[in-house]
Amino acid sequence: MEKITSVTNNRIKDIVKLRDEKKFQIEEQAFFIEGLHMVDEAIKRNLVRSIFLEERMLDKIDASMNYECVLITDNVSNKIASTKTNQGIFAVCELATQKLNLDQNILLLDQIQDPGNMGTLIRSAASFNFQTVVASNHSVSFYNPKVLRSTQGNLFSVNLVNADLLTTINELKENDYIIIGTVLNTNCKSLSSITFDKKQKYALIIGNEANGISLELHDLIDINLNIEMNNDVKSLNAAIAGSIIMYNI
Amino acid sequence: MEKITSVTNNRIKDIVKLRDEKKFQIEEQAFFIEGLHMVDEAIKRNLVRSIFLEERMLDKIDASMNYECVLITDNVSNKIASTKTNQGIFAVCELATQKLNLDQNILLLDQIQDPGNMGTLIRSAASFNFQTVVASNHSVSFYNPKVLRSTQGNLFSVNLVNADLLTTINELKENDYIIIGTVLNTNCKSLSSITFDKKQKYALIIGNEANGISLELHDLIDINLNIEMNNDVKSLNAAIAGSIIMYNI
Repeated sequence: MEKITSVTNNRIKDIVKLRDEKKFQIEEQAFFIEGLHMVDEAIKRNLVRSIFLEERMLDKIDASMNYECVLITDNVSNKIASTKTNQGIFAVCELATQKLNLDQNILLLDQIQDPGNMGTLIRSAASFNFQTVVASNHSVSFYNPKVLRSTQGNLFSVNLVNADLLTTINELKENDYIIIGTVLNTNCKSLSSITFDKKQKYALIIGNEANGISLELHDLIDINLNIEMNNDVKSLNAAIAGSIIMYNI
Repeated sequence: MEKITSVTNNRIKDIVKLRDEKKFQIEEQAFFIEGLHMVDEAIKRNLVRSIFLEERMLDKIDASMNYECVLITDNVSNKIASTKTNQGIFAVCELATQKLNLDQNILLLDQIQDPGNMGTLIRSAASFNFQTVVASNHSVSFYNPKVLRSTQGNLFSVNLVNADLLTTINELKENDYIIIGTVLNTNCKSLSSITFDKKQKYALIIGNEANGISLELHDLIDINLNIEMNNDVKSLNAAIAGSIIMYNI
């Protein structure tokens, strides 16, 4: 089994790049995960290319399986971990291309920038049976370390797709989806006034934290919702708004 | 007007301590805020003791008012700011002791640790007319920089109280509050099955992110709720769960 002891090793440099750079994740068609729970979930789904782990973690995984295992030392762990403390186990996974599942409700993320919001929205989507999450190309990466932490291990139970939202929404409309948005204007319907039909498929757009939903998408919205709230407060956090609507749908 | 140019100035050292240490905030009965919007909101409410600002920001505020103004240089701004970029304006504010308002719904935070969750819960509480937020003494500080950022300026529209929750809940019960909790057990009622009475006062307990609501509080819960969700997902983010329930109440 290969052993890496130096933080300047080229594979370690590449891992740090993979952890931090969306562009490199796409080039390599790979992403980086941290911690035993995440690694276990990735193994179950046959997504692991390579596991990097300290010797003390060897008995925690089945090293005979069809992925590479590389031993690392604790200084290397500290280099590649995105948090101050780490469990000494990491993996590089296959970024499997995922497709829209056109049978179920879909969450559309329009330039979501905050990784905590993105991760929480993925976790809520998994909770409320929105089994596909589509993010516009200018959103934060699904595989950003903070996104991964905020999903609390629910990353793998949702289809994650990067796509142009204008194209995607037109495709969804051809497939009988009702498109829901939250654009602040006079044509809003209050969330509590809407009765959702369990047999109908819905796609919910959540807009950028500062600018909301992109102008080019406004005309495609079938139901424009607002969440009733105190008039003195300008807006809800994007992850909160999205989760409240998904729960109600 | 005093001018501070050195990051080793004792007042600057104290500000950094005030920014980062809950204990020091309590000792000094003060907290630290950043950015023009926050400073403006604090001025409106007459909470400002001292403003620290770069010369270019002088025309943004009314320097004749009854608070001290101290000029600082950009190296000092970078020292005291909690983020990489800053607006060059900061303030030290009075930590006014706040009391329970027993006329309205109340949010109780039981050892909430994540500042993003705390801030988002304060923002949602303001949105859904929970005008008092009580945090147990072991929760993250209301005045942690990341909490302040996550409130998006809604900090000042809510009463913030630090108190022992056992004592507080007993007081609330004497004042006809119904106590709502979310303890995972077989006695849960689903959120959608409950009809909330607009004339009734409710207090909602949100538990610690990892351990939920403290055992000693379980017996005080009048309605134990769960939010209906996919069985494969273990739990929702604490801020999401709290916000969905507050919206429904």
